[in-house]
Amino acid sequence: MVKPDKSRGFASDNNAGVHPHILEAMVAVNKGHVIAYGDDPVTAMAMNRFREIFGEDAGVFFVFTGTAANVLGLASATQPFHAVISPATAHIQVDECGAPEKFTGCKLIAVDTPDGKLTVEKIAGQMQGIGFEHHVQPRVVSITQATEMGTVYSLEELRDIADYTHEHGMVLHMDGARISNAAVSLDCCLYEMTGGVGVDILSFGGTKNGMMYGEAIVFFNKTLGEDFKYRRKQGMQLASKMRFISAQFNAFLQDDLWKKNAAHANLMARKLHMAVADIPGVEVTQRVESNAVFARIPPGIIPRLQEHYFFYVWDEERSEVRWMCSFDTTESDIEGFASLLRSSGEQQ
Amino acid sequence: MVKPDKSRGFASDNNAGVHPHILEAMVAVNKGHVIAYGDDPVTAMAMNRFREIFGEDAGVFFVFTGTAANVLGLASATQPFHAVISPATAHIQVDECGAPEKFTGCKLIAVDTPDGKLTVEKIAGQMQGIGFEHHVQPRVVSITQATEMGTVYSLEELRDIADYTHEHGMVLHMDGARISNAAVSLDCCLYEMTGGVGVDILSFGGTKNGMMYGEAIVFFNKTLGEDFKYRRKQGMQLASKMRFISAQFNAFLQDDLWKKNAAHANLMARKLHMAVADIPGVEVTQRVESNAVFARIPPGIIPRLQEHYFFYVWDEERSEVRWMCSFDTTESDIEGFASLLRSSGEQQ
Amino acid sequence: MVKPDKSRGFASDNNAGVHPHILEAMVAVNKGHVIAYGDDPVTAMAMNRFREIFGEDAGVFFVFTGTAANVLGLASATQPFHAVISPATAHIQVDECGAPEKFTGCKLIAVDTPDGKLTVEKIAGQMQGIGFEHHVQPRVVSITQATEMGTVYSLEELRDIADYTHEHGMVLHMDGARISNAAVSLDCCLYEMTGGVGVDILSFGGTKNGMMYGEAIVFFNKTLGEDFKYRRKQGMQLASKMRFISAQFNAFLQDDLWKKNAAHANLMARKLHMAVADIPGVEVTQRVESNAVFARIPPGIIPRLQEHYFFYVWDEERSEVRWMCSFDTTESDIEGFASLLRSSGEQQ
Amino acid sequence: MVKPDKSRGFASDNNAGVHPHILEAMVAVNKGHVIAYGDDPVTAMAMNRFREIFGEDAGVFFVFTGTAANVLGLASATQPFHAVISPATAHIQVDECGAPEKFTGCKLIAVDTPDGKLTVEKIAGQMQGIGFEHHVQPRVVSITQATEMGTVYSLEELRDIADYTHEHGMVLHMDGARISNAAVSLDCCLYEMTGGVGVDILSFGGTKNGMMYGEAIVFFNKTLGEDFKYRRKQGMQLASKMRFISAQFNAFLQDDLWKKNAAHANLMARKLHMAVADIPGVEVTQRVESNAVFARIPPGIIPRLQEHYFFYVWDEERSEVRWMCSFDTTESDIEGFASLLRSSGEQQ
Repeated sequence: MVKPDKSRGFASDNNAGVHPHILEAMVAVNKGHVIAYGDDPVTAMAMNRFREIFGEDAGVFFVFTGTAANVLGLASATQPFHAVISPATAHIQVDECGAPEKFTGCKLIAVDTPDGKLTVEKIAGQMQGIGFEHHVQPRVVSITQATEMGTVYSLEELRDIADYTHEHGMVLHMDGARISNAAVSLDCCLYEMTGGVGVDILSFGGTKNGMMYGEAIVFFNKTLGEDFKYRRKQGMQLASKMRFISAQFNAFLQDDLWKKNAAHANLMARKLHMAVADIPGVEVTQRVESNAVFARIPPGIIPRLQEHYFFYVWDEERSEVRWMCSFDTTESDIEGFASLLRSSGEQQ
Repeated sequence: MVKPDKSRGFASDNNAGVHPHILEAMVAVNKGHVIAYGDDPVTAMAMNRFREIFGEDAGVFFVFTGTAANVLGLASATQPFHAVISPATAHIQVDECGAPEKFTGCKLIAVDTPDGKLTVEKIAGQMQGIGFEHHVQPRVVSITQATEMGTVYSLEELRDIADYTHEHGMVLHMDGARISNAAVSLDCCLYEMTGGVGVDILSFGGTKNGMMYGEAIVFFNKTLGEDFKYRRKQGMQLASKMRFISAQFNAFLQDDLWKKNAAHANLMARKLHMAVADIPGVEVTQRVESNAVFARIPPGIIPRLQEHYFFYVWDEERSEVRWMCSFDTTESDIEGFASLLRSSGEQQ
Repeated sequence: MVKPDKSRGFASDNNAGVHPHILEAMVAVNKGHVIAYGDDPVTAMAMNRFREIFGEDAGVFFVFTGTAANVLGLASATQPFHAVISPATAHIQVDECGAPEKFTGCKLIAVDTPDGKLTVEKIAGQMQGIGFEHHVQPRVVSITQATEMGTVYSLEELRDIADYTHEHGMVLHMDGARISNAAVSLDCCLYEMTGGVGVDILSFGGTKNGMMYGEAIVFFNKTLGEDFKYRRKQGMQLASKMRFISAQFNAFLQDDLWKKNAAHANLMARKLHMAVADIPGVEVTQRVESNAVFARIPPGIIPRLQEHYFFYVWDEERSEVRWMCSFDTTESDIEGFASLLRSSGEQQ
Repeated sequence: MVKPDKSRGFASDNNAGVHPHILEAMVAVNKGHVIAYGDDPVTAMAMNRFREIFGEDAGVFFVFTGTAANVLGLASATQPFHAVISPATAHIQVDECGAPEKFTGCKLIAVDTPDGKLTVEKIAGQMQGIGFEHHVQPRVVSITQATEMGTVYSLEELRDIADYTHEHGMVLHMDGARISNAAVSLDCCLYEMTGGVGVDILSFGGTKNGMMYGEAIVFFNKTLGEDFKYRRKQGMQLASKMRFISAQFNAFLQDDLWKKNAAHANLMARKLHMAVADIPGVEVTQRVESNAVFARIPPGIIPRLQEHYFFYVWDEERSEVRWMCSFDTTESDIEGFASLLRSSGEQQ
């Protein structure tokens, strides 16, 4: 009876629905009573799967949103007089309505980057006022993998950042809202790119890759997560009917569904890139390493395109747009859009 | 493949699953792309239903949990130097791990009550230090309907509290985690018991009455909710795939499903009450007006009962327990439990 | 040219001015340049004096107000999901406009007491929900010495509370706004009553005992104060011209000035007690163990008394008033007031 | 007996002591009892003086520090989802250990400037995401007058910023830690440069210009300051013995002492500028418009200079130093330092 908007597009991987396997898993656990708040067998199974992936010592907690995973993860590693260093384009900087500052009390230090990626040099440039009481004290380095610009840190880049971070007594947080896309891009396993290179706290994303709701926080250093259950509840992120988040993760992690979904989205982005690369007036502005394509296009054609395929303008001044692919993007979406883009450009 | 714990019980209405109609509605909206974060037709329909119930001027927002509904509702009406007056048994006082204090900065003033219900007299007793800068300033009265003790405020009691609250320049918040049970108990419509008597901010519960996740905040005074969208996002409560909360509410509010579920749970509680009332050693301690039964029972029999039917000890010292009924409690649950209780008592 | 109100009274030890020796010390250090924010010889000397009194390992920090000493002291020992247990009459509960909640995020648990003093039994009654994520976790026990009711904990009472607190993994905070009065009352040295019995964090008061402004926070467990310099600055409590606080403490701690001032105030309170004890209609309600006298007096005479000697009504309902003596209260203040009280009572 | 460090220098106007007239005024009010917390005649007189200067409608409050004036001023105009736009060099950005974020919950947006001064264009560049719930909402523009770089906004520049700020529904905050120096520099009265051009909230500084402690917050829009007394107390900034702050302001504002002190400091800075301008290897980097001189000097000579005259390196990489003059800087300080600088440069 409800008729969802039929128009498809490239606005966000959040505009997609839920992968059928995940929805089936949710339906399947809707039987009888289980203890609320996570003390149930569905959740126990999900915890086991996470520990198989991230190690026996990993502390794992489910929350509702990626913003919550980031914010509560940062809160667990900081005191209010600390600072968090991250790229200026980070989700924690520009898309969380100040939740990190509000909840942790910390200052977020925004570092300009051309591609959404921090480097050791850029971090080092922010290590000021150490031990000086008038200054906030850098305590967390937060990176996003894959970045908000669709780029992906190499394992070596990650290791360098982790080493620098630890040498300076700091903690490395990874916003993995699109971690699956990055793992596929690097062709590595999830641990290799996180705990394996020295990440301390991971926001592990599910929603942008086919889940309905629910993200995980993984502490590789268990001590950091020791009190996290209180922080989660106080952070208004403890699900009463937890089994329905856990069931989603069980399906997500089974038979490599996470990987298949991400591989598909990445492939669609590469195809989109190829399909538009030679269109006159279109300039792809970032390396296409995950499921996003950034491009400058003539501003005049944007409204027409958006009538048929919704997407967001990233930087109005530069007429730069972002096209996101998701697990359910189809070849025909790509073809239709590229063809419309090509003809729009020509009509200009 | 996942096998939920088969043991049923009276621990919490959160231990139940999801009503089939609601789950079907969620499955039904899993089609194609819609704009994320609530700008979609499923959510538009839900908003309309809420406005039909609570009035055209109501400001309505969905969040994930009841704790979030309470905390963000309080935040929208307070400055950090304000105080919130509520019964000592309120969920905001004892079950939210300090989230209200952390998020609003306010002091919560706990008022002892025999039955979980504030009265004008009890509120008046807390109106101290008004205008005196050393004191927090009372700003919100928060009541729970039905209360955490299973009791229900009458419409007259609510009106008295609302009038006093407004006469003193304060705001009335209602924690309606079990609002459906209260409406059934009073045999009134949802508006009558909320906006109709003068409630300003309502936490409207769904999860404890058959939904999977999702609660609503209703502002009867629109100005209070003016900036709420920012507060919700900053409070880490904005669902990206909002349609799946909205679909739940659409089903919940259709064909009086909310009322049927609550009526059933209340009926089961009354039956449980009747079934145990005459068992020697069992003393029901609160009026059974919604879906909870509180009783003192011999401490020695508790472990044996809990082996078969899980429930919580409310007050260890008094050996007082709480039995919650839910939309899926069956007559056979009641009979089985009452019979076990009777025989356990006799064996003592 | 400015003419301070000549009327003297018993309103507060804050209504008194500054002891001449202290003012002289402030004037004396007003010479030349010194490094701001505490890296100066006057402050170094004050630090030494504090360490002589409280031990070489004590961490000592100066702040502006007693509220700040309390709040920042609590902040240094807590996470936002912790709880602080204190008497309902504590300054942190009723006289700091919610600053502890706002700044620490913690819930403050108020315990009713007849005399402003916690006991092990009363603390034990609040040790609920330990390890349960829905509950705040008790982390600090905060006591006031001398209490807000003018009573004084014995060394044994303090030791019992400290032992219980530590056995339960908690931290003991002492609000010592009137610590000098308590030390005189117990005839013990400052360390004996604080670090000596197991206090972990001490708010050491100066302003109510003859200083102009400035209080100290003493950490007996140095680890707790490790990062305190950042917390103080972020708490807006770092004085730029620190030498003027330090000079006050140097004078305060020299030649037992703190003790002389407190002994005088205590003596005046005892004399006041004796002078009013037999007046009909006057009932002293608390033991007079420091510099406060609490009494119930006929409500009708209060306005007339207040015309000549300002003081505060503590509890309107009970017609209970508080009379504070200070380092500059005179025998003639006592005599004048007692005589007015006697005659007022007779005229009634 | 205490021997303040005899070495003078150019480190900070906070390293100076207290102007004798101000100290005398403090001594003069140390008589008898007055009501604590500001309800006293000394404070009433100070309030009158402020209102004479800033208008009958101004709301005026005293606090202890400039950081507190800034932070509590910002808090009174913001909700936690708001943003504050200021230059990257602002005290609130780099010298308050994150107090603004901690206390307000807001994000601070740092804008790069060559001279510490915002412009309408630079503010406009930050007006992003307006009405978009994922973004913090710009609410306050905060400027410093004189700036942290020693420069001074002209009245026209201020008016332009104020107009833009108000047109966009925002509030203009001025950090006036060195407002006296700016007023002297512009040769205008205090109101002309603040309320007169449209400043809404002013942090009015005293300590850097000859006071011992104490700053004022002035609300030109009274509504903004309506509840400020609670915010001040909760912000741990309510002085009990308020008369001693008020006495300082009375002296500061009498017979133009504030102006004389500032004029002297500004003159000394100009003299220092002239004395060093032609020294080889010395490059003055900012316009000398108040009491600061910024210069790049050869890094090799810095340690030797600091042995005799303490000052801070502002930017190590650029070998840029800051020399502050204060109300008690002498011509001989200038001559001695300039001569040492000249000879140090030559010896290199």
